[in-house]
Amino acid sequence: MFDNYKPENILKILVSNDDGIHSQGIYELVQELKKVGDVTVVAPSSEQSAVGHAITMKIPLRIKEVYRRGEFFGYAVDGTPADCVKIGMRNIIQDVPDVVISGINHGSNTAINIIYSGTVSAAREAAIMDIPAIAVSVTSHQVKNFSYAAKFAGNLAKLLIAKDLPKGTLLNVNVPDLPENEIKGVKLTKQGKSKWLETYEERIDPFGNKYFWLTGELNVTDTDDNMDHKAVLNNYVSVTPIHFDLTDYETYSEMQSWNISELDSVSKSSDN
Amino acid sequence: MFDNYKPENILKILVSNDDGIHSQGIYELVQELKKVGDVTVVAPSSEQSAVGHAITMKIPLRIKEVYRRGEFFGYAVDGTPADCVKIGMRNIIQDVPDVVISGINHGSNTAINIIYSGTVSAAREAAIMDIPAIAVSVTSHQVKNFSYAAKFAGNLAKLLIAKDLPKGTLLNVNVPDLPENEIKGVKLTKQGKSKWLETYEERIDPFGNKYFWLTGELNVTDTDDNMDHKAVLNNYVSVTPIHFDLTDYETYSEMQSWNISELDSVSKSSDN
Repeated sequence: MFDNYKPENILKILVSNDDGIHSQGIYELVQELKKVGDVTVVAPSSEQSAVGHAITMKIPLRIKEVYRRGEFFGYAVDGTPADCVKIGMRNIIQDVPDVVISGINHGSNTAINIIYSGTVSAAREAAIMDIPAIAVSVTSHQVKNFSYAAKFAGNLAKLLIAKDLPKGTLLNVNVPDLPENEIKGVKLTKQGKSKWLETYEERIDPFGNKYFWLTGELNVTDTDDNMDHKAVLNNYVSVTPIHFDLTDYETYSEMQSWNISELDSVSKSSDN
Repeated sequence: MFDNYKPENILKILVSNDDGIHSQGIYELVQELKKVGDVTVVAPSSEQSAVGHAITMKIPLRIKEVYRRGEFFGYAVDGTPADCVKIGMRNIIQDVPDVVISGINHGSNTAINIIYSGTVSAAREAAIMDIPAIAVSVTSHQVKNFSYAAKFAGNLAKLLIAKDLPKGTLLNVNVPDLPENEIKGVKLTKQGKSKWLETYEERIDPFGNKYFWLTGELNVTDTDDNMDHKAVLNNYVSVTPIHFDLTDYETYSEMQSWNISELDSVSKSSDN
């Protein structure tokens, strides 16, 4: 299946994540990717879950070399996942990588979670730079099975280079946390529509002041088996192509009849 | 133009931003919106630019009442713009608002900036909750002209309720920082493709350690006058419908021929 992929060209891979450079997921991913390429790790020095596509501008960043199990592992940046890819590309690595892989995230990034995900934002930052990119997550927060997901990421990287993924597109991969013989297969999917049912728990601190803690659960409303969250619930690996053109073209067409140009004169008249 | 809009129904408006509850932009917006509706302000207690769609989960949030010019102004939350809309909806206001308006941002949110924008993320959080939403920015960082943008936001709010904006869509508005007689009109636009040319300036701190500061400029590559950034450069107000379905449907179709299901057996074989 890797017809155009030349194995003599060792893949140059930049790896990041949002759980931080010391997490288990990125360690397992890197061990596997070293078998298929030259790996450079640039990842947040601390956990950065749910930071979305935040970037750091008001304060400077620092870069630190990190060793794991006695060996040089990579570069820690005291910023967000998107910061790591930006500074990794601009100030750490010399060549443009063949692929950027973000993960392995502890917890799924499906449906509405894609919006909040730091894991996805690192891969998206690469896609913005026209570099092929993959975000990989395993569905459980206490992941038992990283190995299949790591191998899958390496194979998908080879495939997307062979197939020439369009610039500006990244692949969002979610893998069920199962022994590999229980994984049913792979599905090409769309982003699901499921959303969170959230509440803020109201509590009182030791000084008598109120504080609020976000809690909730994903309300799975998707019925289409070709949606990401549904696919992993059905024990399939989900692969979703996503991009960063947020234009709603359907509404764009509909709004042609709204005559929004009239809002100019309405707003210029002295009062509403 | 507001054919279905019933002025006897006073608009219930939730206002947020990313420059913080003490910024000038949100103050000017609220003064204007009070003429068209019942306004509740829930905004970050401090500046939150470029936080993207970050949400706060690992630490709790606190809510504080804020007075400006001797009058109650709104609720400050020590979190992100998306946090403000979430907690505003769940724990502060009683009714579902008719519209959520985020802004007025100091600085444009066009092209790739939409991805990083806290202003847009507050409006997007409302769209996720199926509430009509508008993000409003003025193009300059030292804004001289808020008044037209504030009036425009109020009029657009009335229009989108009259026209029934599809659920899950928000309107991203950018207004040139010009006296209103110099604004040429309004354009319905698409998200531009322009990106940042970035560098990290390397500096040395007083202790002899390196640090890196993000700097750069937007590289305006858009030529289509119907793209957001180009529209404001041409002195038009830009209105872009955006959504949070990130699926790249074109690539989804193309990838049907990739046979990604084969990646399963490839990844299950013992080694790459």
